[in-house]
Amino acid sequence: MKFNPKNLRLYVSDVLEKVGLSNENAKVVAESLVVANLRGVDSHGVTRLPIYVKRLQTGAVTPNPQLTVEQESDATLLINGDAGMGQIVGGEAIKLGAEKARKNGAVYIGVKNSTHFGTGAFFIEQAINEGMIAYAMSNAPSTMAPWGGVIPYLGTNPYAFGVPAGKYPSIIFDMATSVVARGKIISAEKRGDSIPEGWAIDKNGVPTTNAKDALEGCVLPFAGPKGYAISLMIDIMSGVLTGAGFGPHINNIYGDFDKPQNVGHFFQLIDINRLMPIDQFKARIDQMIEEIKSAPKAQGVSEIFLPGEIEFNTVKERSENGIKLGADVYESIKQTGQEFGIDIQNY
Amino acid sequence: MKFNPKNLRLYVSDVLEKVGLSNENAKVVAESLVVANLRGVDSHGVTRLPIYVKRLQTGAVTPNPQLTVEQESDATLLINGDAGMGQIVGGEAIKLGAEKARKNGAVYIGVKNSTHFGTGAFFIEQAINEGMIAYAMSNAPSTMAPWGGVIPYLGTNPYAFGVPAGKYPSIIFDMATSVVARGKIISAEKRGDSIPEGWAIDKNGVPTTNAKDALEGCVLPFAGPKGYAISLMIDIMSGVLTGAGFGPHINNIYGDFDKPQNVGHFFQLIDINRLMPIDQFKARIDQMIEEIKSAPKAQGVSEIFLPGEIEFNTVKERSENGIKLGADVYESIKQTGQEFGIDIQNY
Repeated sequence: MKFNPKNLRLYVSDVLEKVGLSNENAKVVAESLVVANLRGVDSHGVTRLPIYVKRLQTGAVTPNPQLTVEQESDATLLINGDAGMGQIVGGEAIKLGAEKARKNGAVYIGVKNSTHFGTGAFFIEQAINEGMIAYAMSNAPSTMAPWGGVIPYLGTNPYAFGVPAGKYPSIIFDMATSVVARGKIISAEKRGDSIPEGWAIDKNGVPTTNAKDALEGCVLPFAGPKGYAISLMIDIMSGVLTGAGFGPHINNIYGDFDKPQNVGHFFQLIDINRLMPIDQFKARIDQMIEEIKSAPKAQGVSEIFLPGEIEFNTVKERSENGIKLGADVYESIKQTGQEFGIDIQNY
Repeated sequence: MKFNPKNLRLYVSDVLEKVGLSNENAKVVAESLVVANLRGVDSHGVTRLPIYVKRLQTGAVTPNPQLTVEQESDATLLINGDAGMGQIVGGEAIKLGAEKARKNGAVYIGVKNSTHFGTGAFFIEQAINEGMIAYAMSNAPSTMAPWGGVIPYLGTNPYAFGVPAGKYPSIIFDMATSVVARGKIISAEKRGDSIPEGWAIDKNGVPTTNAKDALEGCVLPFAGPKGYAISLMIDIMSGVLTGAGFGPHINNIYGDFDKPQNVGHFFQLIDINRLMPIDQFKARIDQMIEEIKSAPKAQGVSEIFLPGEIEFNTVKERSENGIKLGADVYESIKQTGQEFGIDIQNY
């Protein structure tokens, strides 16, 4: 099934309103999910709608959270997310933070009592639009063992970063600290596909290519001990420092339906103008992009990409040609709408 | 040759004073080098003394730099390092930054016109002693191709981070964004050893296990495109944003003897108390450490380590038993002292 992004956004938003989100909040979450699909990161797209709806129904997630600032200084913010959806909580945090960064030059924003925030690039784009350099990170339910261990302790804690360019698309990365995002293993399992070696170990610590066994075991950090260390850093900043859950003390999005997840996020915003006039900065980024794009290529490589460029191209292509959903994803989100008398075929 | 760390520090410091460093500055650099040896990171230890001395002699490095703050806000600092040694410039930057972070909660510190800063963990430890969480990053002369390229563009840009613990050693990581630090390939080449597959490509883009060919080619980023993205982020923050050199526009420490390197650094300090009382934070870190240390181990693994723990153990061991220098390193630093009539055998 192919969808016009606008219609898909509207469908998701309408469904979310049925479980209590305000029109404004429903639009934010719908936008985040559809942006993920547009970027080609389908694991963080509308495939998440059914589980989001389920958690809203059980009361584990607050539909319209009231954020509170628990601690504050000129350059720091600690925000309680009221168990709201991460997309809503994170978006509000970026707004509050950008105000502070414009005033004082930069800000560190800790967020506790939040939930799965979807794709980090969504927040990076918001911050870039405010003339900021941004980092976005989050902890997540544990699926990754510490290096040398066999039992999940860390999440695949995502790490996103971005800066604006002048003539070219922004440079943005948004990566899981595992070899691959766990969402990709979930997708493979849904499709009945096997997974490449090196992605995961089973529950006994043995390397596996079976997606189902992998989901019962651990995904592996990227670059071995280096990815373990970076994932741990993200958990410290998002979880330990904010007062959110950390390590295995974060509730599972696909279980623990009676409890809030207590996920933590950590955002950083820097007002570029405080270090260098933004136009000069953008011109320097453009120079970097041009130098990298024109660099000699390895055998078999037709183009060198900047981080975020492939996603930018995918957004362009899918905006024109529509978002193709797999039959399983289509069926699952269709069914979610039917619960509320919303027919996806009308969109 | 085995050295008592104190004597080695004194020797290095005495030699550096002969090329114009003040006693205070010479001590800072000597401390950084010997700390690297103590931590087991010999590639960033006293092996660097001869090249440091050579660059000071040619005038490419300012022995006693006068730092200037070029831009400033409540939460940001842009510092010109006056082409001083990175250890001296970085240490001053941390001092200025910690003052600001204590006042305003946190700070981002951009540094331009600096040089090779040695081991990032050295700065992290300084910041932790001030009750701060710290990040330290730096760009470096280009030795790594963009992902898909064959010509060096990025450095092995190091990324260091750390937080204090309560009962246990601080959690600190200090990693090159390459599969391994280029210093390890330099050490292998000096020893005449080959290097493992996957570390580097030769100048034609072909994977190589020959250390000499690797040094003429490119080291590979860790985790492929993910390490490329993180290394690029470090170059953007350290180089593009600060006005320092970036990409291939940084001069080589082992060449370009008539020019300053124009390396850039980027430090971030967060006053823990502004988000959470530091004792509570330390207790939560202790809990995390205890949970990870007691986690079930994979087959063949006798102990799970926290980032920085192996280095902490090495410091303990080498502080007691001395620092062992390879014959080549010993000879090269001995010769450097002889130039100034300083006999290493008196230390």
